[in-house]
Order: sequence, then structure tokens, then C-alpha cells
Amino acid sequence: MTKTEKEPVAGLAALPGFPLVLVTVKQNILTAAAFSFFSFQPTPAVMVGIRPATYTFELLQHAKDFGINIPTPDQLDIVRWVGSVSGREEEKFNREEPTPMEGAVIESVLIQECPVNLECKLVHQVQYTGSHHWFIGNIVAVHVDEEYQRDDAIMYWFGEYRRVGEIFYKGR
Amino acid sequence: MTKTEKEPVAGLAALPGFPLVLVTVKQNILTAAAFSFFSFQPTPAVMVGIRPATYTFELLQHAKDFGINIPTPDQLDIVRWVGSVSGREEEKFNREEPTPMEGAVIESVLIQECPVNLECKLVHQVQYTGSHHWFIGNIVAVHVDEEYQRDDAIMYWFGEYRRVGEIFYKGR
Repeated sequence: MTKTEKEPVAGLAALPGFPLVLVTVKQNILTAAAFSFFSFQPTPAVMVGIRPATYTFELLQHAKDFGINIPTPDQLDIVRWVGSVSGREEEKFNREEPTPMEGAVIESVLIQECPVNLECKLVHQVQYTGSHHWFIGNIVAVHVDEEYQRDDAIMYWFGEYRRVGEIFYKGR
Repeated sequence: MTKTEKEPVAGLAALPGFPLVLVTVKQNILTAAAFSFFSFQPTPAVMVGIRPATYTFELLQHAKDFGINIPTPDQLDIVRWVGSVSGREEEKFNREEPTPMEGAVIESVLIQECPVNLECKLVHQVQYTGSHHWFIGNIVAVHVDEEYQRDDAIMYWFGEYRRVGEIFYKGR
């Protein structure tokens, strides 16, 4: 092994990938890989990092909730289209796909085509920021397609869309 | 597609995986998949979620920095051993592996065997907590093995250790 010292951003580029999700706030959608687990207890919770220039960020200032929708590799067209336009310019449910789906609890829309939808109640905005502002949401309802497996999700980072890799070991 | 409504924790179980990292604080090591990107600018930064019962959490109360070390699938023995004991009971560098490596900037130790080491200065502790408390660190130095590729990392979630999946599309 020969290690060389690199610039800080190389540390981010070295990371393998994060779950790619479609974040829904009110009637808008944003593609995000700045997405993470937050907590198991007292309530299962996740967090998402949003750039302040986005329409989603603007909507989140007055929203009480958001949806996390997990797309699959065969939904790449939806993912890329959603990520290519701003909700300020185009209503993202104006096409044949994606199809809006009503939540059981939250006001924000969900995406019917995605096999997993998490309904999240916005509970905290992290008070330290950089390129992204992080929002924490408690999961209040979940919808899962009976045929969904974790292998069906997409991982993304630094321009690379990946399938979920194979399991090589099971254990805690 | 037939969706069924599930308990909130099923929303976490549906997530594909997160990068598995070894967090070093002072002379101790903790295995974590509660690890995320935080920011690109003004300084590249990451964050890590730590359970308050751990020795690492105790050390972080008085630490100024931490290391993020990326192991590979062939280092599963190190990963599992580090995760199986508490630093309160056992000095984790007391065996043949892992080997301590000195950082260029931070005081916390790094792990020689890991092909990627991020030196992080602790800049913020998220003031909202659950099962995990999240700590944000600015990346101040990076060491990368010349042969390392992102495919060499490990993804982990809910007891499944996975390889990094194949790229099926490249683009922003």
C-alpha cells in the first residue's frame, strides 16, 4: 500500500455511495443522495441535506412534513428528469410519470411508482450549515411494495449511479 | 405493485446501506454505518452518529477531532473485532492488526490498514438527538492508497455487509 496525501474534497470523492431518494415536499420533488439514517429511537428518523438555492429548500421553510421515495434502477428516467428541472419552472407531476400518491398522514405528496415511501414529519433543522442544510424527519407512516427488496434501490455519489452490491457477510 | 402500510422502523429497514467506516477518536476505534456526507463547501465535511453508551461518545466530549477510516471487505476481521468489544475493556491497538497510524493534523489515531483515512476536526454536535448523537467534522487532511477505488469499500445496514454495487449509469 502506498498512501498519498490529498485535498479534503478527495475524502468525499473516496466515499462509495449513498441511497438515492426522491424527496417530496408539498407538490414538488427533489433528487437527493445527501440522505441518511438519523435515529432508531424513540422514533425511527431520517435526515436529508438540501441546497439552499433549491425550490425544495424554499418550500421546507413553511412545510411540516416531507416524503422520502425510493426509486429503482428502471426508474432512472424519472430520477434524471426530476433532477434536471426546478419546481419553480415546472410542475413535476405534469407528465405521465411520476404519478402523485396521497399520504396516510402527511400533506406532502408521495410518488406512486417508487416501491417504498416514507412519510416524515419535520422535527428539526440542523443549526450548522454548509453547502447543504440538513432536515430531520420522524417516520410516521411507511408504504412498501410487497416485492421490494433492498437490492432494488439505487446508490449514487459523484456522478455514479450504482446497483446495491452483493451481500458477502451477515452478522451484527 | 401492491403496497402495504408498515411500521415506521420498516422504513429504515428498507434502506439499502450506508458506507461502513471505522471512527477513531483519541486511541479508540468504533465501527459505524451511521455515517454521512455533510457538506462540500466552504469545507468538505462529514458526520457520524454515535450511541451515547459507547466509549467513543465519552471520548468525543473532550476530543477536538476524529478520524474516518474506510475498510475493505478483506478487512472484515478487523471490522468485526473492533465492533465486538468496548474500548473501555480493551485497547483496540493491542493486537497485530489494526496498526495505528499518526495523522498529519489531528491528534486522534488513524488505521494504517485502511486504504482511506480522513482527518476531521470536530466542528459541531447536532442539538437534536435520538438513539444516535451526530457529530460533524471538517475534513482537514486525507490519505488515500494509490490503488484504492470506491468499489473497494463496504456498505452495511441491518446486519448485511455488502460490496459496492456496479455502476449502471454515469451522469449528474
